[in-house]
Amino acid sequence: MLEPLAHIGRDPATGGYVRDAWSAADMELREWFAGEAGRRGLDLREDRNGNLWAWWGDPSGRPGVVTGSHLDSVRQGGAYDGPLGVVSAFAALDLLKERGITPARPVGVVCFTDEEGARFGVPCMGSRLLTGVLAPERALALTDDSGDTLADVLTKAGRAPYELGRDDETLATVGTFVELHVEQGQALVHEGRPVGVAAAIWPHGRWRFDFHGRADHAGTTRLADRDDPMLPFARMVLAARAGAARRDVVATVGKVRVAPGNANAIPGLVSAWLDARGADEAAVRALVAELAEEAPATVREESWTPVVDFAVPLRERLARVAGGDTPAPVLPTGAGHDAGILATAGVPSAMLFVRNPTGVSHSPDEHAERADCEAGVVALADVLEDLCR
Amino acid sequence: MLEPLAHIGRDPATGGYVRDAWSAADMELREWFAGEAGRRGLDLREDRNGNLWAWWGDPSGRPGVVTGSHLDSVRQGGAYDGPLGVVSAFAALDLLKERGITPARPVGVVCFTDEEGARFGVPCMGSRLLTGVLAPERALALTDDSGDTLADVLTKAGRAPYELGRDDETLATVGTFVELHVEQGQALVHEGRPVGVAAAIWPHGRWRFDFHGRADHAGTTRLADRDDPMLPFARMVLAARAGAARRDVVATVGKVRVAPGNANAIPGLVSAWLDARGADEAAVRALVAELAEEAPATVREESWTPVVDFAVPLRERLARVAGGDTPAPVLPTGAGHDAGILATAGVPSAMLFVRNPTGVSHSPDEHAERADCEAGVVALADVLEDLCR
Repeated sequence: MLEPLAHIGRDPATGGYVRDAWSAADMELREWFAGEAGRRGLDLREDRNGNLWAWWGDPSGRPGVVTGSHLDSVRQGGAYDGPLGVVSAFAALDLLKERGITPARPVGVVCFTDEEGARFGVPCMGSRLLTGVLAPERALALTDDSGDTLADVLTKAGRAPYELGRDDETLATVGTFVELHVEQGQALVHEGRPVGVAAAIWPHGRWRFDFHGRADHAGTTRLADRDDPMLPFARMVLAARAGAARRDVVATVGKVRVAPGNANAIPGLVSAWLDARGADEAAVRALVAELAEEAPATVREESWTPVVDFAVPLRERLARVAGGDTPAPVLPTGAGHDAGILATAGVPSAMLFVRNPTGVSHSPDEHAERADCEAGVVALADVLEDLCR
Repeated sequence: MLEPLAHIGRDPATGGYVRDAWSAADMELREWFAGEAGRRGLDLREDRNGNLWAWWGDPSGRPGVVTGSHLDSVRQGGAYDGPLGVVSAFAALDLLKERGITPARPVGVVCFTDEEGARFGVPCMGSRLLTGVLAPERALALTDDSGDTLADVLTKAGRAPYELGRDDETLATVGTFVELHVEQGQALVHEGRPVGVAAAIWPHGRWRFDFHGRADHAGTTRLADRDDPMLPFARMVLAARAGAARRDVVATVGKVRVAPGNANAIPGLVSAWLDARGADEAAVRALVAELAEEAPATVREESWTPVVDFAVPLRERLARVAGGDTPAPVLPTGAGHDAGILATAGVPSAMLFVRNPTGVSHSPDEHAERADCEAGVVALADVLEDLCR
């Protein structure tokens, strides 16, 4: 199913995907989405925040059932995180048509923009802007690695930066949102089931630590005379792991920038991004507070998403419908998703997970078996059919 | 004196210089060198390894006295490291002419290529290739941050990669080499003297540590299931500092690359460059061995320069001539220089240092007072006059 997308943004050296928002690869993926909508006679719309919607039926005045996910990727990511949900959405619509269903409500497929935040550092940018939890001024001023702002990038892509922001008209079209996603863990492997339902999304956030020191010569500056920011940075990495283990949360430093970055110079600045999540919001907050307290760094919160408990009636309905004879397992997850942003904004939302044999995600090794992907499509079609009754 | 070069490769945001070898900035600096040679009627040559030579008199068959340094910089470096030596060389020649001297031996000004190694990771590339201590095959295969090899870069610059390598013809023209350089410490401040002479260059080297782990999702991968290379990297940073302090050497990690480098992904690979130096070669070697032993990393030596003791008679002669009434102080240094590479290859070599009020180097804050720079030119002219007798 993912075959037509397999070549887009693929790094031939690693097999990993690099699909930054608004990059050439992303534009090609958006073209593909438009083509799939067109082939099916769906009505294509791009909202003010760059999210793409393909409608079967007219949702104006009568909110619909929406499914989909995102097409961008983390850098050197896998083929499934995001695209599986979009491709499965189109396939589920095809299945409904094959079954001869005429939905009583409009059905939409969505592709949210910049879910991963690989380019500008803020994940779920499209859904955060749509729901108004991210201020457009703040978004537009974010810069990528080349120093281009989102405003620059949108202008170059022919979009109107000044139109960004909360979009009640679009939100009003979404009666219910169901996102299908590859599982990013092995709970379904342990359950022996191909498809599950999300219970909750852990509270999670991202913080930037800037350690300032004094750039100097690596050979001629005595140890005693140094102000080397690499040392407190290294201490923070170790303290983050120890503090996370103590509190039963997870913490990761996956992105680091060193300036000036010469092998023969003491750095003047080390910037590190901390990602922290856990079932218990207070524990996550306490960990970050402790690290910020101990580290001689300026610390800025780049994003924060409180716990999302998907509404119990909806998720139980999904579990019943998607599970066949035995209800599908209901699982918590540490990963953020657009469905979480929508749920927090009051849109009835739920998620389906498809089994991941290794649990590996955000890596070229991410994988799902074909049969499980097909089971995901059937479950999603069953859910849509049920919700459209 | 450095005014004509002040704008070349300057980052307007920081005031720091970025002058990678064979970059547009470097090409402009080389143009400037050619212009200065032409203005003085000097005979300009580029050797097979890209080093530039400007001769007053013909050195073929009669080795000359050469002075000069390099024009490339570390990234975000200062204005003095390298250029001060080249500019002072031309100024010293002018002074000799003003004094009405007709040197009995040819006098040359040299600009060595890629002294800092900012682009390809190997410092003193031009002098290492010239003297044959770096194999051309190895040099040509080195890659820069864009993945271009030195062979690609040289071809693009219109040079002939296959001509690289030991160049006895050029080496035979260098009877004596004197490099003037801004001091990269504060010894001359403590001595209260504007100019000093190098006693020795500490043994020093650069090692690349590759920590391999498993890229995975930062939210959904339990701590116990992680293989996160950021942790052993952080331990190595702290162990390097502690081990260096214990052994009275210096160790620095100034360059780090994290792949894939997503804030929400556990890294798959952390590459870190260790720079280690000290008066005692065995102590430096022991530190690196200990770190390589303890770190779960593949470790590769990128460069190694044994101790350089500049020949005593030559450096004492320089101290006497350059010092005026009281001999100039003779100082050891932790910084590598082309003069060290030439000395090791058997070319009688020596160095003059010019006072640096803060000692800061490899930083935009690097500085030398104008009066001290002028004292450096006078000292260098005196030395050349003496050596040409």
